[in-house]
Amino acid sequence: MKEIRVSAPATVANVVCGFDCLGFALSAPNDEMLVRLIDEKTVRIINCDEYTLPTEPKKNVAGAALLSMLRAIDEDFGFEVEITKHIKPGSGIGSSSASAAGAVVAANHLLNQRFTKRELVEFAMDGEVVASGARHADNVAPCVFGGFTLVRSNHPLDIVELEFPPLFVTVVHPQIEVKTSDAREILKQKIALKDAVAQWSNVAALVAGLQKGDYQLIARSLEDRIIEPIRSILIPKFDEIKRESKAAGALGGGISGSGPSIFMLSETETTARAVENAMRDVYAATEIEFNIYVSPINASGVTIADN
Amino acid sequence: MKEIRVSAPATVANVVCGFDCLGFALSAPNDEMLVRLIDEKTVRIINCDEYTLPTEPKKNVAGAALLSMLRAIDEDFGFEVEITKHIKPGSGIGSSSASAAGAVVAANHLLNQRFTKRELVEFAMDGEVVASGARHADNVAPCVFGGFTLVRSNHPLDIVELEFPPLFVTVVHPQIEVKTSDAREILKQKIALKDAVAQWSNVAALVAGLQKGDYQLIARSLEDRIIEPIRSILIPKFDEIKRESKAAGALGGGISGSGPSIFMLSETETTARAVENAMRDVYAATEIEFNIYVSPINASGVTIADN
Repeated sequence: MKEIRVSAPATVANVVCGFDCLGFALSAPNDEMLVRLIDEKTVRIINCDEYTLPTEPKKNVAGAALLSMLRAIDEDFGFEVEITKHIKPGSGIGSSSASAAGAVVAANHLLNQRFTKRELVEFAMDGEVVASGARHADNVAPCVFGGFTLVRSNHPLDIVELEFPPLFVTVVHPQIEVKTSDAREILKQKIALKDAVAQWSNVAALVAGLQKGDYQLIARSLEDRIIEPIRSILIPKFDEIKRESKAAGALGGGISGSGPSIFMLSETETTARAVENAMRDVYAATEIEFNIYVSPINASGVTIADN
Repeated sequence: MKEIRVSAPATVANVVCGFDCLGFALSAPNDEMLVRLIDEKTVRIINCDEYTLPTEPKKNVAGAALLSMLRAIDEDFGFEVEITKHIKPGSGIGSSSASAAGAVVAANHLLNQRFTKRELVEFAMDGEVVASGARHADNVAPCVFGGFTLVRSNHPLDIVELEFPPLFVTVVHPQIEVKTSDAREILKQKIALKDAVAQWSNVAALVAGLQKGDYQLIARSLEDRIIEPIRSILIPKFDEIKRESKAAGALGGGISGSGPSIFMLSETETTARAVENAMRDVYAATEIEFNIYVSPINASGVTIADN
């Protein structure tokens, strides 16, 4: 029986000034997925974790992504998927994208790389719709491609892989619930032109900083005048986490996706660990439970765990 | 008598999706300026062209920039400037910036490079105020630094030099008047978040395309949903110029600064010349007088003409 095991990483979307276009992959946490080819043209989902996610394929993110792939194939086979999620749903670090991207990257390996990465992102986006209602690539693109990605356009899909210098990420997940739909609804649909100019100047500078490997430029560009001031009110201790992380040496950071996770970028692992301690101190003084992950940016995206 | 002659190039600001932050320098046209050190702490302006610009230093762009520089110097000398403008005021290709930047770069040579380029841009911005009322660096930055620049922030001034592949520019200046103040007033002060997202995705992709030397990415990113639809109505035949230029092979382009000039970027000089012909055909069928310039991007900015 042909099967493959993959690790599908968490991802950070938006990246402060890059709302709805920038994203990058983390090296931890990862979902584990085992995908096997089956003779029947169907998708079967087996959940091996505590999250009680739907097993009906079209209601499951990985299932919907694989069904999308099967629609592009005129042959009689299907996929069975065992999913062990370690990325908590609703954490804001691309849990659903990991399931969707992991499933299609694994399936594509079983099909001897029949599809391009871009096509895999398209399939995974059909999975994302199940979770968020929106067909967005800002998490699935970095999950499939690895590294730092820019989604210039969703329709037609236009993904730009960005170069980047060594960067370490500290992510804290305060265990509170922020629904993506709520986080989206509170945004203003009209914004001031002058704020938009500041935002696109920053995102342009951030891309330049990443491509050049200019850490100070990256730090100066990690500024968001539009989304963060609104969404951060949903995240307890956001300002304090940010202030203490920067005091500990972080280049900068902000809300991961639509929250509640908060990420910070650092130039070295030592600094990223100091940031971890600073974050721990802030939340330890509260009743809020939290997880913290420290890892380098993951240049590979979904990877084969064994064969 | 210590004196120096410089060429100060025209510049293109905004660059389609980079409103109020991106700019680049042209190799033609250029203003000619002769700057000499004088014993008196003052600035004297001598206009050697037909434009009847003010000669009172604080009302003259070059004069105001040099006065700003003199305020930073605690010594008793000044400058006399002979200006021969070839960049028509009001053309939208940085005529005032060339005067301001040319004056301070020349003066700085006479002072053995006492100031940094960034400081020169600050002085030149004080000159720009005289012409436009606004202290903006989007034209003076590329004029001083050369090449493609990104002004991440005007206050504090943060200029990013971008890498770029060989690019040829065709600029057509239809001889109609568009006042910068009018072009600014018709803009909407509030814009839709979704349009802003499209804009910052494009500007981020444009910077990535420039840094990578990816011509097709540059072409796809040269899209402006916010400023161009409004300002282009002030420029006769804008849509036709754009359509015919692209048909002739241009990567893309749009309004230069606040207009009325229109620029197009091409990968080769041959294409840039074909674009020139396409533009000529459009305006030749009208009563509008026009000038067209074809030149590579100017990597040097203001240059010494002789010594």
